[in-house]
Amino acid sequence: MREIRVIAVEGLPEIREGDDLAELIAAKLDLEDGDVVVFAQKAVSKAEGRVVRLEDLEPSERAREIAGDDLDPRRIEAILQEAKRVVRVRKPLVIAETRHGFICASAGVDSSNAPEPGMLVLLPLDPDASARRIAQAAHQRYGCRVAIIITDTFGRPWRQGLVDFALGVAGMPALLDLRGSSDLDGRTLKHTVAAQADALAAAAGLLMRKGDAIPAALVRGYGFARGSGSGTELLREKQFDLFR
Amino acid sequence: MREIRVIAVEGLPEIREGDDLAELIAAKLDLEDGDVVVFAQKAVSKAEGRVVRLEDLEPSERAREIAGDDLDPRRIEAILQEAKRVVRVRKPLVIAETRHGFICASAGVDSSNAPEPGMLVLLPLDPDASARRIAQAAHQRYGCRVAIIITDTFGRPWRQGLVDFALGVAGMPALLDLRGSSDLDGRTLKHTVAAQADALAAAAGLLMRKGDAIPAALVRGYGFARGSGSGTELLREKQFDLFR
Repeated sequence: MREIRVIAVEGLPEIREGDDLAELIAAKLDLEDGDVVVFAQKAVSKAEGRVVRLEDLEPSERAREIAGDDLDPRRIEAILQEAKRVVRVRKPLVIAETRHGFICASAGVDSSNAPEPGMLVLLPLDPDASARRIAQAAHQRYGCRVAIIITDTFGRPWRQGLVDFALGVAGMPALLDLRGSSDLDGRTLKHTVAAQADALAAAAGLLMRKGDAIPAALVRGYGFARGSGSGTELLREKQFDLFR
Repeated sequence: MREIRVIAVEGLPEIREGDDLAELIAAKLDLEDGDVVVFAQKAVSKAEGRVVRLEDLEPSERAREIAGDDLDPRRIEAILQEAKRVVRVRKPLVIAETRHGFICASAGVDSSNAPEPGMLVLLPLDPDASARRIAQAAHQRYGCRVAIIITDTFGRPWRQGLVDFALGVAGMPALLDLRGSSDLDGRTLKHTVAAQADALAAAAGLLMRKGDAIPAALVRGYGFARGSGSGTELLREKQFDLFR
């Protein structure tokens, strides 16, 4: 029977700025054509030096206002700098839309597993570009065509609990368009576009729990059509969003 | 390295009313303790006879109003009967909240892969009860403790493309509470509750495309804590929903 394997990439060293993620992964397992390598955002951000020190942040008026007496205004300042828009504040939570268009807690700014105490990790500046760089490195150096997905763990509207989502994608389309294909009785399926990169992110997330020291997972056997793709494909513009 | 296998349950016969899903699966593969068996909602609904004939539906005034000239008012009537609330109409799409609390297209009413032309398949009445029945049958008859997840494919706010979600859950908690556990530096993780049943649903969905004749998938090696659970755990009450 058809089978997909989701493999935790264990035993990676703590990621530091300048680390080559393709090389780190390739040292742990033999990459094959058609593999999907899924990285937690934090690994990519740390490798890219996307961190900031609390002590280097000068809180704005607005950051102080939101922080009040109970939150660190420097952390709020980092969130505001990453955000296009603050969606909701219910302390200690600040939900914001990032400059990329992701709506999530703290605009993706996070202190857990930061390189040092007093540091915050930010989302990659351009997760699609990050994914492309890793995919290209894997191809140039190891000769294999893999897809790369960079993920983060987000809350969702309507539903409890967090799930991993695709922020950046390379080497595969993020959306799998099944329109035009048929159901079992030969009727054409009308509205089926699968968010395959999000489903792969969620699957990899089953093995990449925060704090687990597993910043990457490999999905083997998925069998996707190669092609360019991006995490931004997954963002739905407001005017087309019937759920908003 | 730790590994999860997602296995498509291929070669199942077309599901009919009265079919025993535990038996159908067990005939195809040896179930093991700790397996998660994921069923597409349609298989469960068909086995439970949750179908309706268009010709048996008498459209209400409201159904006719929504349908106008371009939609079948009997189909809209079926949707209204399944719905607690219509969220949005943008033809041909009708987004509704089901009586269970799921917000999805057509309140889950679907004509594709129906048992016969002119029939609509409805969501199971109580997906958690359906999941429990299958889990109990697997235990009583084959002596193994498996978790059961019943899924459907939904659109999402903010994001393009469909992903599979957990509607009904048995044998495992739908939410995995990681609060109190530590990150790598020993700091306590504060807000991490993982929607593991949704992530498992999404993973299984990678193999259960509509029209693919694969109404079930097995997830092996996930390693969950056994326990009671339900799909309703995943529903976030409006007053606690910062994203809505």
